[in-house]
Amino acid sequence: MEKKFEEKTIRTKPIFEGRIVKLQVDEVTLPNGKTSKREIIKHPGAVAVIAVTNDNRIVFVEQYRKPLEKSIFEIPAGKLEHGENPEYTAKRELEEETGYTTDQLELVTSFYTSPGFADELIYIYFTDRLIPLDESKALDEDEFVDVIELTLDEAEELVGRQQIHDAKTEYALLYLKLKGLS
Amino acid sequence: MEKKFEEKTIRTKPIFEGRIVKLQVDEVTLPNGKTSKREIIKHPGAVAVIAVTNDNRIVFVEQYRKPLEKSIFEIPAGKLEHGENPEYTAKRELEEETGYTTDQLELVTSFYTSPGFADELIYIYFTDRLIPLDESKALDEDEFVDVIELTLDEAEELVGRQQIHDAKTEYALLYLKLKGLS
Repeated sequence: MEKKFEEKTIRTKPIFEGRIVKLQVDEVTLPNGKTSKREIIKHPGAVAVIAVTNDNRIVFVEQYRKPLEKSIFEIPAGKLEHGENPEYTAKRELEEETGYTTDQLELVTSFYTSPGFADELIYIYFTDRLIPLDESKALDEDEFVDVIELTLDEAEELVGRQQIHDAKTEYALLYLKLKGLS
Repeated sequence: MEKKFEEKTIRTKPIFEGRIVKLQVDEVTLPNGKTSKREIIKHPGAVAVIAVTNDNRIVFVEQYRKPLEKSIFEIPAGKLEHGENPEYTAKRELEEETGYTTDQLELVTSFYTSPGFADELIYIYFTDRLIPLDESKALDEDEFVDVIELTLDEAEELVGRQQIHDAKTEYALLYLKLKGLS
Protein backbone atom coordinates (compact mmCIF):
# COMPACT_ATOMS: atom_id res chain seq x y z
CA MET A 1 0.00 0.00 0.00
CA GLU A 2 1.40 3.34 -1.05
CA LYS A 3 1.76 5.82 1.81
CA LYS A 4 3.30 8.82 0.02
CA PHE A 5 2.42 12.13 1.73
CA GLU A 6 0.94 10.10 4.60
CA GLU A 7 -1.22 12.01 7.05
CA LYS A 8 -0.79 10.49 10.49
CA THR A 9 -3.75 10.60 12.84
CA ILE A 10 -3.27 12.65 16.01
CA ARG A 11 -6.80 11.99 17.25
CA THR A 12 -10.17 10.88 15.92
CA LYS A 13 -13.38 12.58 17.00
CA PRO A 14 -16.47 10.43 16.38
CA ILE A 15 -19.41 12.66 15.38
CA PHE A 16 -22.23 10.40 14.23
CA GLU A 17 -23.01 6.71 13.95
CA GLY A 18 -26.04 5.96 11.80
CA ARG A 19 -27.66 2.97 10.21
CA ILE A 20 -25.54 3.34 7.08
CA VAL A 21 -22.78 5.89 7.54
CA LYS A 22 -20.51 7.04 10.33
CA LEU A 23 -18.89 10.45 10.41
CA GLN A 24 -15.63 11.29 12.17
CA VAL A 25 -13.19 14.17 12.14
CA ASP A 26 -9.52 13.19 12.19
CA GLU A 27 -6.88 15.63 13.30
CA VAL A 28 -3.80 14.80 11.22
CA THR A 29 -0.15 15.70 10.83
CA LEU A 30 0.56 16.85 7.27
CA PRO A 31 3.77 15.98 5.38
CA ASN A 32 5.17 19.45 6.25
CA GLY A 33 4.61 18.89 9.99
CA LYS A 34 1.59 21.18 10.25
CA THR A 35 -1.78 19.88 11.38
CA SER A 36 -5.14 19.82 9.66
CA LYS A 37 -8.56 18.22 10.00
CA ARG A 38 -10.16 15.64 7.73
CA GLU A 39 -13.90 15.00 7.67
CA ILE A 40 -14.37 11.29 6.97
CA ILE A 41 -17.46 9.25 6.14
CA LYS A 42 -17.22 5.55 6.96
CA HIS A 43 -19.38 3.34 4.78
CA PRO A 44 -19.69 -0.49 4.73
CA GLY A 45 -18.95 -0.68 0.98
CA ALA A 46 -21.19 -1.76 -1.86
CA VAL A 47 -21.61 -3.92 -4.92
CA ALA A 48 -23.18 -3.35 -8.33
CA VAL A 49 -23.97 -5.69 -11.20
CA ILE A 50 -23.73 -4.97 -14.92
CA ALA A 51 -26.42 -7.42 -16.07
CA VAL A 52 -27.16 -8.08 -19.74
CA THR A 53 -30.11 -10.16 -20.94
CA ASN A 54 -30.15 -12.74 -23.75
CA ASP A 55 -31.45 -10.10 -26.14
CA ASN A 56 -28.63 -7.65 -25.29
CA ARG A 57 -30.59 -5.41 -22.99
CA ILE A 58 -29.10 -3.92 -19.84
CA VAL A 59 -31.01 -4.33 -16.58
CA PHE A 60 -31.66 -1.13 -14.63
CA VAL A 61 -33.56 -0.29 -11.49
CA GLU A 62 -35.39 2.99 -11.11
CA GLN A 63 -35.23 4.30 -7.57
CA TYR A 64 -35.85 7.54 -5.70
CA ARG A 65 -32.61 8.92 -4.29
CA LYS A 66 -33.35 11.23 -1.39
CA PRO A 67 -29.98 13.06 -1.44
CA LEU A 68 -30.69 14.01 -5.11
CA GLU A 69 -34.45 14.56 -4.62
CA LYS A 70 -35.11 12.71 -7.86
CA SER A 71 -35.46 9.17 -9.17
CA ILE A 72 -32.76 7.80 -11.45
CA PHE A 73 -32.01 4.59 -13.34
CA GLU A 74 -29.02 2.69 -11.98
CA ILE A 75 -27.50 -0.72 -12.42
CA PRO A 76 -28.63 -3.03 -9.56
CA ALA A 77 -26.59 -2.33 -6.44
CA GLY A 78 -26.59 -2.61 -2.70
CA LYS A 79 -24.61 -2.25 0.47
CA LEU A 80 -22.34 -4.93 1.85
CA GLU A 81 -23.59 -6.44 5.04
CA HIS A 82 -20.91 -6.80 7.70
CA GLY A 83 -18.48 -9.57 6.82
CA GLU A 84 -20.39 -10.57 3.68
CA ASN A 85 -18.52 -11.72 0.60
CA PRO A 86 -19.04 -9.11 -2.18
CA GLU A 87 -19.93 -11.73 -4.80
CA TYR A 88 -22.58 -13.16 -2.49
CA THR A 89 -24.01 -9.66 -1.93
CA ALA A 90 -24.01 -8.99 -5.67
CA LYS A 91 -26.06 -12.12 -6.33
CA ARG A 92 -28.47 -11.30 -3.49
CA GLU A 93 -29.02 -7.73 -4.69
CA LEU A 94 -29.52 -8.91 -8.27
CA GLU A 95 -32.16 -11.37 -7.07
CA GLU A 96 -33.95 -8.93 -4.76
CA GLU A 97 -33.99 -5.98 -7.11
CA THR A 98 -34.43 -7.53 -10.57
CA GLY A 99 -36.05 -10.97 -10.28
CA TYR A 100 -33.07 -12.58 -11.99
CA THR A 101 -30.40 -14.79 -10.56
CA THR A 102 -27.15 -15.95 -12.15
CA ASP A 103 -24.64 -18.77 -11.94
CA GLN A 104 -21.75 -16.59 -13.10
CA LEU A 105 -20.50 -13.24 -11.89
CA GLU A 106 -17.27 -11.80 -13.20
CA LEU A 107 -15.50 -9.14 -11.13
CA VAL A 108 -14.88 -6.19 -13.47
CA THR A 109 -13.19 -3.80 -11.05
CA SER A 110 -13.57 -2.08 -7.72
CA PHE A 111 -13.33 1.62 -7.01
CA TYR A 112 -13.74 4.21 -4.29
CA THR A 113 -16.63 6.50 -5.13
CA SER A 114 -15.51 9.66 -3.30
CA PRO A 115 -11.96 9.21 -2.03
CA GLY A 116 -11.74 12.79 -0.77
CA PHE A 117 -14.24 12.32 2.03
CA ALA A 118 -15.57 8.72 2.10
CA ASP A 119 -14.18 5.19 2.29
CA GLU A 120 -17.04 3.66 0.27
CA LEU A 121 -15.55 0.97 -2.00
CA ILE A 122 -17.82 -0.51 -4.66
CA TYR A 123 -17.24 -3.85 -6.39
CA ILE A 124 -18.54 -3.99 -9.97
CA TYR A 125 -19.58 -7.37 -11.40
CA PHE A 126 -20.67 -8.40 -14.87
CA THR A 127 -23.00 -11.17 -15.99
CA ASP A 128 -24.76 -12.05 -19.20
CA ARG A 129 -26.07 -15.31 -17.79
CA LEU A 130 -29.35 -14.25 -16.25
CA ILE A 131 -31.88 -16.81 -15.04
CA PRO A 132 -35.42 -15.58 -14.24
CA LEU A 133 -36.50 -16.46 -10.70
CA ASP A 134 -39.79 -18.34 -10.28
CA GLU A 135 -40.73 -16.26 -7.27
CA SER A 136 -39.69 -12.71 -6.61
CA LYS A 137 -37.64 -12.02 -3.48
CA ALA A 138 -38.48 -9.40 -0.90
CA LEU A 139 -36.83 -6.00 -1.05
CA ASP A 140 -35.79 -4.18 2.10
CA GLU A 141 -38.86 -2.69 3.73
CA ASP A 142 -37.87 0.88 2.85
CA GLU A 143 -36.90 0.05 -0.74
CA PHE A 144 -39.11 0.76 -3.78
CA VAL A 145 -37.76 0.03 -7.24
CA ASP A 146 -38.95 -0.60 -10.79
CA VAL A 147 -36.97 -2.81 -13.14
CA ILE A 148 -36.43 -1.76 -16.74
CA GLU A 149 -34.38 -3.34 -19.52
CA LEU A 150 -32.86 -1.04 -22.13
CA THR A 151 -30.57 -1.24 -25.12
CA LEU A 152 -27.26 0.59 -24.90
CA ASP A 153 -28.61 3.28 -27.24
CA GLU A 154 -31.67 3.82 -25.08
CA ALA A 155 -29.50 3.98 -21.97
CA GLU A 156 -27.19 6.56 -23.54
CA GLU A 157 -30.21 8.69 -24.28
CA LEU A 158 -31.07 8.59 -20.57
CA VAL A 159 -27.57 9.84 -19.75
CA GLY A 160 -28.28 12.83 -21.96
CA ARG A 161 -31.51 13.45 -20.04
CA GLN A 162 -29.73 12.98 -16.68
CA GLN A 163 -32.05 10.12 -15.75
CA ILE A 164 -28.93 7.98 -15.69
CA HIS A 165 -26.70 10.17 -13.59
CA ASP A 166 -24.37 8.23 -11.31
CA ALA A 167 -20.77 7.08 -11.49
CA LYS A 168 -21.16 3.28 -11.41
CA THR A 169 -23.90 3.30 -14.07
CA GLU A 170 -22.07 5.65 -16.43
CA TYR A 171 -18.97 3.49 -15.93
CA ALA A 172 -21.06 0.42 -16.80
CA LEU A 173 -22.21 1.95 -20.09
CA LEU A 174 -18.65 2.71 -21.21
CA TYR A 175 -17.64 -0.81 -20.16
CA LEU A 176 -20.39 -2.37 -22.29
CA LYS A 177 -19.63 -0.13 -25.25
CA LEU A 178 -15.97 -1.21 -25.13
CA LYS A 179 -17.12 -4.82 -24.91
CA GLY A 180 -18.99 -4.29 -28.19
CA LEU A 181 -22.57 -4.46 -26.90
CA SER A 182 -24.95 -2.85 -29.34
CA MET B 1 -37.13 15.89 -12.90
CA GLU B 2 -38.43 12.40 -12.27
CA LYS B 3 -40.07 11.99 -8.87
CA LYS B 4 -41.23 8.35 -9.01
CA PHE B 5 -41.40 6.76 -5.54
CA GLU B 6 -40.83 10.22 -4.07
CA GLU B 7 -39.92 10.35 -0.40
CA LYS B 8 -41.38 13.52 1.11
CA THR B 9 -39.49 15.12 3.96
CA ILE B 10 -41.30 15.23 7.29
CA ARG B 11 -38.41 16.87 9.09
CA THR B 12 -34.68 17.42 8.70
CA LYS B 13 -32.30 17.05 11.60
CA PRO B 14 -28.96 18.79 11.03
CA ILE B 15 -26.14 16.77 12.62
CA PHE B 16 -22.86 18.26 11.49
CA GLU B 17 -21.60 21.17 9.46
CA GLY B 18 -17.94 20.90 8.53
CA ARG B 19 -15.51 22.61 6.23
CA ILE B 20 -16.38 20.28 3.37
CA VAL B 21 -19.42 18.13 4.18
CA LYS B 22 -22.66 18.55 6.07
CA LEU B 23 -24.59 15.63 7.52
CA GLN B 24 -28.33 15.59 8.13
CA VAL B 25 -30.92 12.93 8.88
CA ASP B 26 -34.22 13.33 7.04
CA GLU B 27 -37.36 11.67 8.30
CA VAL B 28 -39.37 10.78 5.21
CA THR B 29 -42.73 9.40 4.11
CA LEU B 30 -42.23 6.34 1.91
CA PRO B 31 -44.43 5.59 -1.14
CA ASN B 32 -46.44 3.10 1.00
CA GLY B 33 -47.19 5.76 3.64
CA LYS B 34 -44.75 4.43 6.23
CA THR B 35 -41.91 6.53 7.52
CA SER B 36 -38.16 5.98 7.43
CA LYS B 37 -34.92 7.87 7.97
CA ARG B 38 -32.32 8.86 5.40
CA GLU B 39 -28.77 9.79 6.32
CA ILE B 40 -27.64 12.44 3.87
CA ILE B 41 -24.24 13.98 3.18
CA LYS B 42 -24.32 17.41 1.58
CA HIS B 43 -21.27 18.22 -0.52
CA PRO B 44 -20.52 21.33 -2.65
CA GLY B 45 -19.83 19.24 -5.78
CA ALA B 46 -16.62 18.75 -7.70
CA VAL B 47 -14.87 18.81 -11.05
CA ALA B 48 -12.28 16.56 -12.66
CA VAL B 49 -10.22 16.91 -15.83
CA ILE B 50 -9.20 14.17 -18.25
CA ALA B 51 -6.02 15.80 -19.53
CA VAL B 52 -3.95 14.33 -22.36
CA THR B 53 -0.52 15.67 -23.37
CA ASN B 54 0.82 16.17 -26.91
CA ASP B 55 2.57 12.80 -26.70
CA ASN B 56 -0.63 10.98 -25.67
CA ARG B 57 0.08 10.70 -21.98
CA ILE B 58 -2.59 11.13 -19.35
CA VAL B 59 -1.94 13.56 -16.50
CA PHE B 60 -2.43 12.16 -12.98
CA VAL B 61 -1.89 13.52 -9.50
CA GLU B 62 -0.72 11.28 -6.70
CA GLN B 63 -2.29 12.24 -3.39
CA TYR B 64 -2.78 10.75 0.07
CA ARG B 65 -6.44 10.06 0.74
CA LYS B 66 -7.06 9.95 4.46
CA PRO B 67 -10.38 8.02 4.25
CA LEU B 68 -8.52 5.24 2.37
CA GLU B 69 -5.28 5.53 4.38
CA LYS B 70 -3.29 5.24 1.17
CA SER B 71 -2.08 7.40 -1.70
CA ILE B 72 -3.59 6.87 -5.14
CA PHE B 73 -3.23 8.31 -8.64
CA GLU B 74 -6.27 10.28 -9.79
CA ILE B 75 -7.11 12.62 -12.62
CA PRO B 76 -6.82 16.24 -11.44
CA ALA B 77 -9.90 17.24 -9.48
CA GLY B 78 -11.22 19.59 -6.88
CA LYS B 79 -14.23 20.90 -5.04
CA LEU B 80 -16.51 23.59 -6.37
CA GLU B 81 -16.33 26.81 -4.45
CA HIS B 82 -19.72 28.30 -3.65
CA GLY B 83 -21.33 29.74 -6.76
CA GLU B 84 -18.34 28.97 -8.95
CA ASN B 85 -18.80 27.91 -12.56
CA PRO B 86 -17.63 24.27 -12.92
CA GLU B 87 -15.55 25.00 -16.03
CA TYR B 88 -13.76 27.80 -14.21
CA THR B 89 -13.05 25.46 -11.28
CA ALA B 90 -11.79 22.78 -13.64
CA LYS B 91 -9.28 25.17 -15.19
CA ARG B 92 -8.17 26.42 -11.77
CA GLU B 93 -7.64 22.90 -10.40
CA LEU B 94 -5.76 21.86 -13.54
CA GLU B 95 -3.45 24.86 -13.12
CA GLU B 96 -2.92 24.43 -9.37
CA GLU B 97 -2.39 20.68 -9.41
CA THR B 98 -0.55 20.01 -12.67
CA GLY B 99 1.25 23.16 -13.85
CA TYR B 100 -0.70 23.13 -17.11
CA THR B 101 -3.43 25.41 -18.30
CA THR B 102 -5.72 25.06 -21.30
CA ASP B 103 -7.80 27.17 -23.64
CA GLN B 104 -10.32 24.41 -24.30
CA LEU B 105 -12.30 22.23 -21.91
CA GLU B 106 -15.01 19.92 -23.21
CA LEU B 107 -17.70 18.75 -20.80
CA VAL B 108 -17.79 14.95 -21.05
CA THR B 109 -20.49 14.20 -18.51
CA SER B 110 -21.53 14.77 -14.92
CA PHE B 111 -22.45 12.13 -12.36
CA TYR B 112 -23.36 11.64 -8.73
CA THR B 113 -20.64 9.65 -7.00
CA SER B 114 -22.72 8.01 -4.24
CA PRO B 115 -26.42 8.68 -4.83
CA GLY B 116 -27.49 6.47 -1.93
CA PHE B 117 -26.12 8.76 0.77
CA ALA B 118 -24.50 11.86 -0.78
CA ASP B 119 -25.40 14.67 -3.17
CA GLU B 120 -21.86 15.10 -4.51
CA LEU B 121 -22.11 15.78 -8.25
CA ILE B 122 -18.89 15.74 -10.25
CA TYR B 123 -18.40 17.37 -13.65
CA ILE B 124 -15.91 15.60 -15.90
CA TYR B 125 -14.03 17.64 -18.52
CA PHE B 126 -11.65 16.63 -21.29
CA THR B 127 -8.78 18.50 -22.85
CA ASP B 128 -5.89 17.58 -25.10
CA ARG B 129 -4.78 21.18 -25.47
CA LEU B 130 -2.41 21.59 -22.55
CA ILE B 131 -0.21 24.66 -22.22
CA PRO B 132 2.63 24.55 -19.66
CA LEU B 133 2.48 27.42 -17.15
CA ASP B 134 5.60 29.57 -16.74
CA GLU B 135 5.13 29.72 -13.00
CA SER B 136 3.51 27.10 -10.83
CA LYS B 137 0.42 28.09 -8.87
CA ALA B 138 -0.03 27.54 -5.16
CA LEU B 139 -1.91 24.51 -3.92
CA ASP B 140 -4.23 24.72 -0.93
CA GLU B 141 -2.14 24.82 2.22
CA ASP B 142 -3.17 21.30 3.26
CA GLU B 143 -2.69 19.78 -0.20
CA PHE B 144 0.36 17.73 -1.24
CA VAL B 145 0.45 16.17 -4.69
CA ASP B 146 2.89 14.79 -7.24
CA VAL B 147 2.16 15.00 -10.95
CA ILE B 148 2.83 12.03 -13.20
CA GLU B 149 2.11 11.47 -16.90
CA LEU B 150 1.37 7.92 -18.03
CA THR B 151 0.35 6.11 -21.18
CA LEU B 152 -3.02 4.36 -21.15
CA ASP B 153 -1.25 0.99 -20.85
CA GLU B 154 0.75 2.16 -17.85
CA ALA B 155 -2.40 3.55 -16.24
CA GLU B 156 -4.28 0.29 -16.74
CA GLU B 157 -1.46 -1.51 -14.99
CA LEU B 158 -1.98 0.81 -12.01
CA VAL B 159 -5.68 -0.15 -11.94
CA GLY B 160 -4.58 -3.77 -11.59
CA ARG B 161 -2.35 -2.78 -8.66
CA GLN B 162 -5.15 -0.68 -7.11
CA GLN B 163 -2.98 2.45 -7.23
CA ILE B 164 -5.65 3.84 -9.52
CA HIS B 165 -8.73 3.02 -7.52
CA ASP B 166 -11.47 5.61 -7.78
CA ALA B 167 -14.61 6.01 -9.87
CA LYS B 168 -13.81 9.18 -11.85
CA THR B 169 -10.33 7.97 -12.81
CA GLU B 170 -11.47 4.50 -13.86
CA TYR B 171 -14.26 6.17 -15.84
CA ALA B 172 -11.64 8.40 -17.50
CA LEU B 173 -9.58 5.42 -18.64
CA LEU B 174 -12.57 3.74 -20.30
CA TYR B 175 -13.46 7.07 -21.91
CA LEU B 176 -9.97 7.44 -23.39
CA LYS B 177 -9.88 3.83 -24.55
CA LEU B 178 -13.18 4.36 -26.38
CA LYS B 179 -11.76 7.54 -27.89
CA GLY B 180 -8.93 5.47 -29.34
CA LEU B 181 -6.05 6.76 -27.20
CA SER B 182 -3.17 4.33 -27.22
